[in-house]
Amino acid sequence: MRLLRGGGDPPSAVGAQRLAGYRARAARVDPAADLSAARSLGARLVCPEDHEWPGQLDDLGDARPVGLWVRGKPSLRLWALRSVAVVGARACTEYGAHVAASLGAGLAERGWVVISGAAYGIDGAAHRGALAAGGATVAVLACGVDRAYPPGHTELLRRIAEQGLLVSEPPPGAHPTRRGFVLRNRVIAALARGTVVVEARYRSGSLVTARRAQRLGRLSAGVPGPVTSGLSAGVHELLRGEATVVTDAAEVIELVGGMGELAPSRRGPLVARDLLDPPAARVLEALPARGGADIRQLALEAGTGTDETVARLYELLSLGFVERQGERWRPVTPQGGSSDVPRGGP
Amino acid sequence: MRLLRGGGDPPSAVGAQRLAGYRARAARVDPAADLSAARSLGARLVCPEDHEWPGQLDDLGDARPVGLWVRGKPSLRLWALRSVAVVGARACTEYGAHVAASLGAGLAERGWVVISGAAYGIDGAAHRGALAAGGATVAVLACGVDRAYPPGHTELLRRIAEQGLLVSEPPPGAHPTRRGFVLRNRVIAALARGTVVVEARYRSGSLVTARRAQRLGRLSAGVPGPVTSGLSAGVHELLRGEATVVTDAAEVIELVGGMGELAPSRRGPLVARDLLDPPAARVLEALPARGGADIRQLALEAGTGTDETVARLYELLSLGFVERQGERWRPVTPQGGSSDVPRGGP
Repeated sequence: MRLLRGGGDPPSAVGAQRLAGYRARAARVDPAADLSAARSLGARLVCPEDHEWPGQLDDLGDARPVGLWVRGKPSLRLWALRSVAVVGARACTEYGAHVAASLGAGLAERGWVVISGAAYGIDGAAHRGALAAGGATVAVLACGVDRAYPPGHTELLRRIAEQGLLVSEPPPGAHPTRRGFVLRNRVIAALARGTVVVEARYRSGSLVTARRAQRLGRLSAGVPGPVTSGLSAGVHELLRGEATVVTDAAEVIELVGGMGELAPSRRGPLVARDLLDPPAARVLEALPARGGADIRQLALEAGTGTDETVARLYELLSLGFVERQGERWRPVTPQGGSSDVPRGGP
Repeated sequence: MRLLRGGGDPPSAVGAQRLAGYRARAARVDPAADLSAARSLGARLVCPEDHEWPGQLDDLGDARPVGLWVRGKPSLRLWALRSVAVVGARACTEYGAHVAASLGAGLAERGWVVISGAAYGIDGAAHRGALAAGGATVAVLACGVDRAYPPGHTELLRRIAEQGLLVSEPPPGAHPTRRGFVLRNRVIAALARGTVVVEARYRSGSLVTARRAQRLGRLSAGVPGPVTSGLSAGVHELLRGEATVVTDAAEVIELVGGMGELAPSRRGPLVARDLLDPPAARVLEALPARGGADIRQLALEAGTGTDETVARLYELLSLGFVERQGERWRPVTPQGGSSDVPRGGP
């Protein structure tokens, strides 16, 4: 913030023109008030130099956000490591809503984090599917993390703030703008390992997100539908290009799981067991060695709240300490040595 | 036939084991009676050495048919040059039937010949779509060309025999067998430039046809449907492999038209204008130089029957002399020289 106000050396990843734009806007805003507003609703500002910053956003180059406002308990960085974006039309069909909810639930049941934009239609169905499966979901907003937009999703946004994460580039209080939605889509594309489009008309914003994901080297996929439906026409167009046909969550995971260069198991351990945050360590301790446990049992055992437990379990999952199968969580047996090192370690 | 009975030198394209099988079967049949039965219903036997033999069937190697029984006026060879197979489930949905009929009509309207297997469901809908558009269609049967199988398609088969072509490997009088359907599918795959699957369950015969087409270097494509439909599951599986997503006839033609090595325009003229059969020459003469004409006008002008006119127009189309747009046919302007040479000539 001081940098934007003061005019010191620009960060190397941000171009001069973009920086000038940021500075012009920075002159009109009140960062101290934003930070105080954020603090009062339990939100935080995550910047590139922070530990919670998802490094994959740096792939955006000049278009990298200077920071993200984050509301919710989990670590954005850890959750985004095992995430898939599910996006699509606002005015979707019942078929599309059903498929998006199934995908959201199926991804969550297999331990994947569902990212979407909290819009009506496909986005909302994907978030709800993940929440209903007791899973992890991230809503990337085009407005401040304190605003209930769209208004019909007030209750959904409240649940995501409690059980998952609300993320936005504009500061608290900001209204959504047309340009804001376009900018938001690039964050979704960069944050997730892959983007799945469920229903989209020709020239839909969801297709832009999927193509942005492709250019960033991420996976893109589409769920086919009837060729007689205009709401599947955009998806089919995408599928005639680089995107892959997917029909269920297992097929989505088969694809994103194959992107070895992003998989934690091939990057080695991200953190040693004794460096875990105390609540994460408590949840890990609470896991029985055999048979696994569900979230309710674990929360009781670890003395953490249910939402906190979910947040920590998905972090532990991203770090390779635990795995999820349906409702049950269990520790991953370390391979080849020290129990302090998750699988895939050196 | 004499070869099969007499045991002379086997043709080089047929393996010894297969030849032994043919000979065993040949010993049980009566070729003279078959030929006489065929003649009485206006059918003929087309063999590899005949002018009407579609050369692309030689790609089947050892599995090449020793001959095909053909019923109908047009030349099988010429029609197959610009053909697409549309196949799929017998017990299809209304959606599948609608799409197959639209594809059949759309391909016919653009001057493409629709090949299918005359089965209930997708096959029948594709044939009917082509016929309804005044177009060309070929039914490849697993029984004799004189048999009405399936019985509910008696009238459809009669119309195809009049306006298009019935083709079969088994002789007149032969009943369809399980093995016969499998053998029939390889003829469809080899005959057409590409195979489009409209609806198919997992492990469906239509998928076998499409994969055979792929192995033969032909195009394979599939029409997507709802992922909630078991009748689209096989198609989606195909689309997750080598096959291309297509949603209408224009997209099918975009694909098969791109297979340059089979396109007549790149092979040069197949026949000079003064070598055309007299009825084909009369139909070509009857075409006005500008504006085109429909089939009724042309039949009147050329003094050929409607079915004969359709047959000749599709032959002229394959040879590069005419083109079809919707209901209207018009001559192709020769490029760069002699009017005796169709476009693409030397």
